[in-house]
Amino acid sequence: MQLEHKPPAVELSAPVPLVEVTRGPIVESRHRGHVAVVDGAGRLVAALGDPGTITYLRSSAKPFQAIPLVISGAADRFGFSERELALACASHNGEPIHTQTAQSMLDKIGLGPEALKCGAHEPFSAAETRRLRERGEEPNVLHNNCSGKHAGMLALALHVGAPAATYHQLDNPIQQLIREVVARFSGVAVEDIAIGIDGCAVPVFGVSMKAMAQMYAHLVAPPESFDEAMRAASQRIVAAMINYPEMIGGTSERLDTEMMRAGQGRLISKVGAEGVYTVGVLPCAEWPSGLGLALKIEDGENFRARPTVVIECLRQLGVLRGESLSAVAPYSRFPVRNRRGDVVGEVRAAFKLVSPNGR
Amino acid sequence: MQLEHKPPAVELSAPVPLVEVTRGPIVESRHRGHVAVVDGAGRLVAALGDPGTITYLRSSAKPFQAIPLVISGAADRFGFSERELALACASHNGEPIHTQTAQSMLDKIGLGPEALKCGAHEPFSAAETRRLRERGEEPNVLHNNCSGKHAGMLALALHVGAPAATYHQLDNPIQQLIREVVARFSGVAVEDIAIGIDGCAVPVFGVSMKAMAQMYAHLVAPPESFDEAMRAASQRIVAAMINYPEMIGGTSERLDTEMMRAGQGRLISKVGAEGVYTVGVLPCAEWPSGLGLALKIEDGENFRARPTVVIECLRQLGVLRGESLSAVAPYSRFPVRNRRGDVVGEVRAAFKLVSPNGR
Repeated sequence: MQLEHKPPAVELSAPVPLVEVTRGPIVESRHRGHVAVVDGAGRLVAALGDPGTITYLRSSAKPFQAIPLVISGAADRFGFSERELALACASHNGEPIHTQTAQSMLDKIGLGPEALKCGAHEPFSAAETRRLRERGEEPNVLHNNCSGKHAGMLALALHVGAPAATYHQLDNPIQQLIREVVARFSGVAVEDIAIGIDGCAVPVFGVSMKAMAQMYAHLVAPPESFDEAMRAASQRIVAAMINYPEMIGGTSERLDTEMMRAGQGRLISKVGAEGVYTVGVLPCAEWPSGLGLALKIEDGENFRARPTVVIECLRQLGVLRGESLSAVAPYSRFPVRNRRGDVVGEVRAAFKLVSPNGR
Repeated sequence: MQLEHKPPAVELSAPVPLVEVTRGPIVESRHRGHVAVVDGAGRLVAALGDPGTITYLRSSAKPFQAIPLVISGAADRFGFSERELALACASHNGEPIHTQTAQSMLDKIGLGPEALKCGAHEPFSAAETRRLRERGEEPNVLHNNCSGKHAGMLALALHVGAPAATYHQLDNPIQQLIREVVARFSGVAVEDIAIGIDGCAVPVFGVSMKAMAQMYAHLVAPPESFDEAMRAASQRIVAAMINYPEMIGGTSERLDTEMMRAGQGRLISKVGAEGVYTVGVLPCAEWPSGLGLALKIEDGENFRARPTVVIECLRQLGVLRGESLSAVAPYSRFPVRNRRGDVVGEVRAAFKLVSPNGR
């Protein structure tokens, strides 16, 4: 039996521990990751791990995937409401308010659910999944958390005369428009954006954590270098998310919705798959040029790690405090229970953001 | 806004990347962890990360929790079959073969399910959960994956005259007997074993990864230093697991069962919660004194990371090869699919075990 002999590799800028899961006297599990926080001037004001780590935006791309829908005039041509525009940016719960709104968008463009290429999955809402089961119904494409995004993409394809049957493929003109928007907001050249396929079958964009944070900083505070149409579209998307937070996540049990409710117009909050979370903080006294935050839990944990980290980051950055912090506290630090319901440990944040200049 | 300035900490013996989850051209997520492999002489023959990492055995403790049931004579007094003894070591699927066997154990000791303190949860078997829902039934304590262990603990309590109502508490004599067994097999002093509360409400034992591997090496090849009763009990537990692998996991979709089937009597395989997995390899040509293997996925991932790692470890150690390797391959490297079923990435092992002497 011959095993390979080699010294352990030392990783530069490896992901750092962000969340501890305790049980009794010891830490039983840990979640590591990367965080990047960029201000409106593009400065990296806080970080952890490697802000240069490249990963996919996943659903954090949705507000940017909706930008061409606005700029092209497609949203206005089809008479999409602000609420429908919010749904185009959503990873929604599949509740009736979501499926009905997605259906309304399809009605306005004259297509049926069969035109959506996102596939079906059980609603994120456990209550809605239960209701479907009780009625003996299968989930359909409208329940897919991305159905609003896909309806928006179809609208864009019809408006610009791109093939509607292949709207989800990278070579479709609308996906090219979207990729250009990602390049514009991130500052990453089109050819340097990594391209994969998302869970809902459309192209997904890979950029660095810092670039991802930059995108959200630009979205909430579009720079002078953006033309008027791009600035206006950004403001319209941000307003739609802030005014209809329940369309972005759901009526309950969704951190992105609760974060925007708690933020009271001061921030937008968007979850991505595989442990990604992004936040844009509008210009405020604390952060006059606004902030963009991007985080990635390396192992892809979406439930116990990601919410804990984003809330603690915003607390340390002074964005969440007092009542707004209390409102999201249940997602931040919570007990581990056994099958009988007794508390046997806890999930808690275990990090301090660092200023990159101080490293 | 003042952020803490400090250099990034360098961790000695940090967990190492074990599994990569790709999407398109990039690695989207990674799982890190620790591995320890010990031979029958107590030598650390392979490792990754820090074999000194202390974590809980969780359900990997079950074969040891069953040892006092055998040694005390309780199993024989109540006429437990070898199949029932296997169930005492199980994290079972909650299929009818499991719930009926747990009920049979209770019948033999003259107690009802209400005596079990494990709490209820949906069966691990998705098919069984579906059946329960279709019949409108709630899961009960017999479906709990630990119901056999708890029935065994009750039998032990009755046999030794310990209070049956508090069999799950650390100060109950039977839990003291179990802790002594953990100390004996691990070589860790009773007072140095970390104690938490498991998901099923009984004490759970924290030792190093190396000690955990040692426990399995001793179980499959009891050392001369063990008395005859301990050696015989070990052999009886190992035989029960090997002869009834479907009682340990389930009739399908359970890696521990498939591993023991593939091993054809050459190994025992036991899953623990929060990313723990343990294997004992009986003495063989390749490893004449036997092997114990323990691994921990740091983030607690149980599905895509842990199976991939344990199979790759056993492949590198020469324990799984040819047909036995093919039999478990579906758990080892598998595609990531989108909601439409297209392959968009893969989950794969990404490590080489090292010989500690070579580090």
